Amino acid sequence: MKPIITFFISLVFATSVCGQVSDSAWIARVYDHVLTKGVAYEDLRTLCKGIGHRLAGSESAQKAVDWGLLTLLNAGADRVFAMPVEVPHWTRGNVNVASATTSRGDTALAITALGGSVGTNGPLRAEVIEVKSLEELAELGREKIEGKIVFFNKAMDAALINTGAAYGGAFPIRSKGPSEAARFGAVACIIRSLTLADDNFPHTGATQYEEDVRRIPAAALSAVASRQLSALLKTDPHLKFTLEMNCEAFPRVMQGNVIGEITGSVYPDEYIVIGGHLDSWDIGEGAHDDGTGIVQSIEVLRCLKAIGYRPQRTIRVVLFINEEFGNDGGITYAKVAMESGWKHLAAIESDGGGFTPLGFNCELTDAQFEHTRPWLTKLEPYNLFKIRQGGSGVDIRPLKDGKVGLFGLSVDGQKYFDYHHTNNDRFENVNRRELHLGAAAMTALTVLLDMHGLE
Amino acid sequence: MKPIITFFISLVFATSVCGQVSDSAWIARVYDHVLTKGVAYEDLRTLCKGIGHRLAGSESAQKAVDWGLLTLLNAGADRVFAMPVEVPHWTRGNVNVASATTSRGDTALAITALGGSVGTNGPLRAEVIEVKSLEELAELGREKIEGKIVFFNKAMDAALINTGAAYGGAFPIRSKGPSEAARFGAVACIIRSLTLADDNFPHTGATQYEEDVRRIPAAALSAVASRQLSALLKTDPHLKFTLEMNCEAFPRVMQGNVIGEITGSVYPDEYIVIGGHLDSWDIGEGAHDDGTGIVQSIEVLRCLKAIGYRPQRTIRVVLFINEEFGNDGGITYAKVAMESGWKHLAAIESDGGGFTPLGFNCELTDAQFEHTRPWLTKLEPYNLFKIRQGGSGVDIRPLKDGKVGLFGLSVDGQKYFDYHHTNNDRFENVNRRELHLGAAAMTALTVLLDMHGLE
Repeated sequence: MKPIITFFISLVFATSVCGQVSDSAWIARVYDHVLTKGVAYEDLRTLCKGIGHRLAGSESAQKAVDWGLLTLLNAGADRVFAMPVEVPHWTRGNVNVASATTSRGDTALAITALGGSVGTNGPLRAEVIEVKSLEELAELGREKIEGKIVFFNKAMDAALINTGAAYGGAFPIRSKGPSEAARFGAVACIIRSLTLADDNFPHTGATQYEEDVRRIPAAALSAVASRQLSALLKTDPHLKFTLEMNCEAFPRVMQGNVIGEITGSVYPDEYIVIGGHLDSWDIGEGAHDDGTGIVQSIEVLRCLKAIGYRPQRTIRVVLFINEEFGNDGGITYAKVAMESGWKHLAAIESDGGGFTPLGFNCELTDAQFEHTRPWLTKLEPYNLFKIRQGGSGVDIRPLKDGKVGLFGLSVDGQKYFDYHHTNNDRFENVNRRELHLGAAAMTALTVLLDMHGLE
Repeated sequence: MKPIITFFISLVFATSVCGQVSDSAWIARVYDHVLTKGVAYEDLRTLCKGIGHRLAGSESAQKAVDWGLLTLLNAGADRVFAMPVEVPHWTRGNVNVASATTSRGDTALAITALGGSVGTNGPLRAEVIEVKSLEELAELGREKIEGKIVFFNKAMDAALINTGAAYGGAFPIRSKGPSEAARFGAVACIIRSLTLADDNFPHTGATQYEEDVRRIPAAALSAVASRQLSALLKTDPHLKFTLEMNCEAFPRVMQGNVIGEITGSVYPDEYIVIGGHLDSWDIGEGAHDDGTGIVQSIEVLRCLKAIGYRPQRTIRVVLFINEEFGNDGGITYAKVAMESGWKHLAAIESDGGGFTPLGFNCELTDAQFEHTRPWLTKLEPYNLFKIRQGGSGVDIRPLKDGKVGLFGLSVDGQKYFDYHHTNNDRFENVNRRELHLGAAAMTALTVLLDMHGLE
C-alpha cells in the first residue's frame, strides 16, 4: 500500500455564487455543461484503454487508484486522499478451458472461472449431472452426484421486466451452487452464465465457498456453450467433461478507496457522497461495471466546479475498491465514517451501467421521501420519471443507518447483463451521450440535495 | 403493381375467451408471451438480411410488400390485403463521392446524396462557402454565393434532452437548404449530417426542391468529414471541392400499404390501427428506421392470437409504404379511410427505433386523455412511465380528425440519430429484448384500447 496521498488547495479566492440562482436554473446549467463540454467519456477511454480491467488486489487496480487520485485532483477537488482498504488477491490464471468428449469426439466449450474459484491442478475429468436448481440438486442427493461435475443450467427469467430482478433470482446458484454441490460430493461445479443474451461470452462473478465443505473448482459456461452441453448430454448422458483452470489465491493486500472533495461553504462537516466502484472483474475492461460509475462521479465534481456552483455541504466523490469480491471498500468506508463521526446527509451511487438514466432508486424514510417530492419532480423535464423507494448501491449500502439518504442511479438496463462480467464489457459498448446524461442526472441530484437537505 | 391480394380465414371455430380476464391479467400474458416466445427479432433478421434496405419505388420495397403480406398471414391474420399507393422512384446511383483539393493535395470526404437530389452529370468542381444557418445564407446574398457550393455546417443541438427535438431543430437545413442556396446562385449544396454522433457515416434523408428555383445537387457529409472540410477551409478558403453523384429520378410507380386484420368480435367496423413504415432509405438495412416498427406491429397481431385474446374491435396492422419521401402511404391510407367511411378508434405507431420503450406520446382530446388515465397507469409496472400529450407518428398523423386517438411508442432514443439514415442502421444494432419490450408495450396498449375505448 502506498502512503495516503493528501492534497489541499487554497480556497482563498473562492466566492459564493449560489445566492441568486434557483435550483431549476442550476440544473439547466448542469445539463448544458455536461452534454456539451463533459469529458467523462474521455476519462472512461483512459480508464478502459489505458489501464484496462482492474480486479481488486491486482497491479492494475493499484494503477487505477493512482489514476483516480490524479484525475480527481485535475477535476478541481479541494482535497484528495486514499483510504486504506484490505482486499483479496486472487488470479484467474492463463488456462480456463473445458471440453465435452462423446463417442463423436471433443467439443470445446467457452468457459471461465468464477471469481475466487480454486484451480483444477491439471485437467479434471468427470461425468456431468445437469440440474436446474439448488432444490433439484438436494433431491438428487449424494448417490447421483458424488464424483461428478454438477451443471446448473438455469437461464435468468426473461419474463421479468427489470433485468436486475432476473439477475437476483439467478444469483444464488452462482454464489451458493458450488458449495452445495460439494456438500453432495461433486468434484466441480459449472453454471450457465447469468445473462439474458444468447451469445458465447462466459460471465464470471464471485462465488462464496462455505467454510464446512471442500472447495471445488467453479466456472461459468457461456449461454451458447450451456445449450451445446445440454444437447450433448441428451445424446450421451455419460459423456466426459474436462475442465482445466489454474486459478490461485494469495494473501490479502492493502489498496484504497479514492476520495476527492469540494469543501462545503456552510456545513463543511456534512457530506454528500457520490460514487461507484473502481475495481472490476479481470476480463474485459470493466466499462459498464463500473468504469462508467467512476467517471460519472468524477464528472459531478468537475461540473460543479465548472459551472461555479459552490456547495453548502462537502461534496465527496468516493471511488470504492473491491465491490466485486466482498465489498471491502464500502464496508471499510462506513466503518471509518462511524469511527470518525462523519455526518452524511446522503450518498448517490452509479453501478447499473452507463446507459440512459431513467431516475433514482431511493432508500429514504417515508418522511424524507415526502420531503423530496416537490423538488425531485424538477428532474422530470430531463426524462427522470422513475423515482422509487427500494434499492440504491452495494458500495453505499453499509452507510444505511435510518438517517442518511441513499440513491442509486436507475438506468435503462435492459442490455446490462449482456455485458456484465464478460470480455465484452468494453469501452466501445458505452455511448457517450447516454454516459453523460447519467453524469448530469447525478450532478443535478447533488445540487438538489445540497440546496434542500432531507428534512 | 400487383393485384390486391386478399385472404379470408374462417372464424367458425373461434370462441370468445375474453370474458373473465381482467385488463391487467391480459397485459401480464402479453409480456410473458412476447418476452419468452416472441419472434419479432427473427422477423427483423429476415427483413434486414433477406431483403435489406427498401427504398419506396425499388424492387426490394416490392419484395418487402410481398414479405409483409405473407408474414401477416402466417402470423394469424384473418384477412390480409395490399392497398395501392403511388410512390416516387429515385435512385442514388453507384457514384457518391467528394474531395477537397488544396495546395497540399486531395482529401476524400465521406458523403452521400440527400434523397431526391439531382445528379452532378460528371464531376462538379467549385469553391465552398461555409454557413451555419439559413439566416446567414440570406445575409451573405448572391454576391458571395453565386457559382459556389454552399456548406451548411451546423451540428444538432446536443444540449437538448430529447434527440427528436434536436433533429427537428436541424431539419429545415436539410429540407430547405438546397433550394435556398440555389436561390442565391449556388451550384450545389452540402450539409453536415443530422446526427449527434461523431463518426464518419453520412446521413441521407429527403430534401424538398422548391418549384421556382433550379434543382442543384444536394448531399450530406459525415460529422467527421464536415469537421475536416471546415478545418481545410480555415487554411485555404479558396480550396476546390469536387462532387460527383449519378442520382436519377424516374416516373412514379405503384406499390402498396400492407394490411392484416383480426376481425372484431363485437364492433367489426371499428378499427384500431397498429403500424410502422415498411420502406427505408437505400443505405444500411433500415433496421431501426423502421424495420423494428414493422416487426413489432406484426408481433402485436401474432401475440393477440397466441394468447387467445379475441378483440372486440378490428385490429388492423398497417405496414405503410413511403414514409421517408413524401408520406404517400399514410396520406393514401387516410384518404381511402375517409372515402370508405372507416371508423377508427385509435392508431398506434412505432417509428423511433427498436429501443427500450418508455411510454407513449399521445394526440388525444383532453377528455380522451383524462379517460385513459386510470387504465394507462396499468402500464407503469412495465416501466412505461412517460405518457404525454404531443406527437404520435408520421404515417398515422393524416388520420387526425379530433376523434381518433393517436399514439406513438416513446423509446429511449438517445442513440437513434447515431444510426438514422446511414449505412450503420443494421440488424446488429438492434437488441432483441429491447425490441420485444416495444412489441409488448404496443400489444398491451392495443388490449387496453380495445377493452376500454376512448370515451
